[in-house]
Amino acid sequence: MRFDRVLTDARLATMVPGETPYGTIEAGAIGISGERIAWVGPAADLPGEADITDNLEGRWVTPALVDCHTHLVFAGDRSDEYERKLAGESYQAIAKEGGGIRKTVEATRKAGAAELAAGALSRLDAFASEGVGTIEIKSGYGLTRESELTQLKAARGVGLASGMRIVPTLLAAHTIPVEYEGRSGAYIDEVCIPLVREVAKSGLAEAVDAYCETIAFSPEETRRLFIAAKAAGLPVKLHADQLSDTGGAKLVAEFGGLSADHIEYTRADGVAAMAKAGTVGVLLPGAFYALREKRLPPIGLMRDAGVPMAVATDANPGTSPLVSLLTAANMACTLFHLTVEEAFAGITREGARALGLSGEIGTLEAGKRADLAIWDIERPAELVQWIGRRPLHGRVLGGEWL
Amino acid sequence: MRFDRVLTDARLATMVPGETPYGTIEAGAIGISGERIAWVGPAADLPGEADITDNLEGRWVTPALVDCHTHLVFAGDRSDEYERKLAGESYQAIAKEGGGIRKTVEATRKAGAAELAAGALSRLDAFASEGVGTIEIKSGYGLTRESELTQLKAARGVGLASGMRIVPTLLAAHTIPVEYEGRSGAYIDEVCIPLVREVAKSGLAEAVDAYCETIAFSPEETRRLFIAAKAAGLPVKLHADQLSDTGGAKLVAEFGGLSADHIEYTRADGVAAMAKAGTVGVLLPGAFYALREKRLPPIGLMRDAGVPMAVATDANPGTSPLVSLLTAANMACTLFHLTVEEAFAGITREGARALGLSGEIGTLEAGKRADLAIWDIERPAELVQWIGRRPLHGRVLGGEWL
Repeated sequence: MRFDRVLTDARLATMVPGETPYGTIEAGAIGISGERIAWVGPAADLPGEADITDNLEGRWVTPALVDCHTHLVFAGDRSDEYERKLAGESYQAIAKEGGGIRKTVEATRKAGAAELAAGALSRLDAFASEGVGTIEIKSGYGLTRESELTQLKAARGVGLASGMRIVPTLLAAHTIPVEYEGRSGAYIDEVCIPLVREVAKSGLAEAVDAYCETIAFSPEETRRLFIAAKAAGLPVKLHADQLSDTGGAKLVAEFGGLSADHIEYTRADGVAAMAKAGTVGVLLPGAFYALREKRLPPIGLMRDAGVPMAVATDANPGTSPLVSLLTAANMACTLFHLTVEEAFAGITREGARALGLSGEIGTLEAGKRADLAIWDIERPAELVQWIGRRPLHGRVLGGEWL
Repeated sequence: MRFDRVLTDARLATMVPGETPYGTIEAGAIGISGERIAWVGPAADLPGEADITDNLEGRWVTPALVDCHTHLVFAGDRSDEYERKLAGESYQAIAKEGGGIRKTVEATRKAGAAELAAGALSRLDAFASEGVGTIEIKSGYGLTRESELTQLKAARGVGLASGMRIVPTLLAAHTIPVEYEGRSGAYIDEVCIPLVREVAKSGLAEAVDAYCETIAFSPEETRRLFIAAKAAGLPVKLHADQLSDTGGAKLVAEFGGLSADHIEYTRADGVAAMAKAGTVGVLLPGAFYALREKRLPPIGLMRDAGVPMAVATDANPGTSPLVSLLTAANMACTLFHLTVEEAFAGITREGARALGLSGEIGTLEAGKRADLAIWDIERPAELVQWIGRRPLHGRVLGGEWL
């Protein structure tokens, strides 16, 4: 067997479930052919040679990290209202003056794709420095046909410029735009559903998301949108049961959805439906932390039912100003009581599953893309334990060192 | 007036208390002579020229950040027990096997100054990338004369190698070493007090700290140590009232201490004593977060009494694995309800005050050291709002770009 590249003298956290924690292979090696992992195992068993051999001197190699839920493409700044809220002003007073998500929508509508991409790229640096290889980016601050498409194009542009894999998601049903106030159903029918059909054809988005909540879209409106997505051939996911139990997790599972996200208020019937459908529970502790929420997602129920759990940043300028996926993993342990291995699986293997990319990324296995993070650490748990430490030695994406 | 260097086209957050939030000067300039700030004000009023002029193109300049409470010099790794605790094992079971702080002590005692300095330097990178200019480092993992001195020497070495100002603190009274189990008073008298006298002479430490708590040293033992420190001419500070109210804040104030740190359980009498003595309250939300504590420090009482509040990381391998001072500031807002300006003052002006360095660093004022952080931001509040973002353009320390 001949490889293009071999990484050797490595400790591998393959994240393949099995006998060892983290799917660890000590004294391991990885053979790469083209963009793919061709072979993974103990270095002593390496079945061939390579044009290039990189000796990693005992460093740890993990799958490149996967952030499966972000809102990274937006314009404007909301640090002023962050400041005012902490100084004691009410959310209502700020919203009345056009603050909150509407401020981001206003700024995003005015921005072109290039400006949006530049802003997102500046934020993407933080992810790159933590070994992230794949990142989902949602639209949802445009709320018009034109502006939603511009956001999705910006997301695509960010992928080309950064070398990272960007997974764009249509989230037109994020909030009700001012021009449709009191007419959320009409917004779904007149803007969101036509957009679903359009992006399904153009390939600008790989999934459809919505915000099902008392302050956003009803289960009935969400269902109409999901029916359209299914008809158009796009998978669905949902901001579900974040602030109240609207049955969102159950609804998205009914459509065989990729993931139910937030899920603080999801109950046993929702968890059972997710388990049956294979829908991933995406935990977003950054929003829980920033909003000072108290209600914990049903971690124990999900564990017992075998619902896969992913962890993501929810990076956005309002409710989760967090651009560190490793910190999200730490918060998942500290705030949601995940084990360290569960949290790390949440930002690798299960993050990939939540994007429908289990066959492509998220573990170190032959046949998958050679997306790797190489670390200056002694144990994988250090990555989750320390906040603010970035012991990344380097990234290999698609078989090439970045 | 002739300067060595002028920074112009800058927005200045001087952090000088006054009429504008953050002591802001829009369209400002800074004149530097040698290591010092010689002039600060509106660029239009600049009273002279310079050999070198740096146009900052509208960027924000703040004082370089100050972290006034860390345990950055240590050896060994405790990610294994972090992992075991999250998997459900009890602290007691882990301590029984020699885990907890004793594990760090054992590893630190075996390490030489060079190894300790190398470890600390690897952690210091994270602070440098966030614009930190001054960082306090405590001993307290040696607990013998030799090993405590080795830790302090490593801290000095870290300062020389990093270009940052390191403020070393003797914390021999951190925990009771195994060889003195049940004889904490003897440890104070036989090890800690002689060390206080020795470092006061050699200048290896600039202050004396202790851990006054039911699981560590009693108020009476702490008092004996403080009397010795005062006699030797060293200022004191204290890990006070973290897990219970032992009257620690009141005690350290009685000695005119620099700061009372943690202070979750400090009551009104302690706050009053701090106000009278000018003792800074050092908030350590990273430990509060990591230990999942519930009891909040008396922020309202301190505000009302005019007690200055600093914010620090408490960076250590057990109870606060946090090496991001900006994240500490965010946590101070989210968890302790500080305003954004209070939190930012806590990692600049008040951090300096907690180190007794108010005359030297912590604000942008003529006469102070030219320790500056230059940022790619639109508003200072962004620095506190976002977790994981590091929009540092550069640092000037002692008048020189790093």
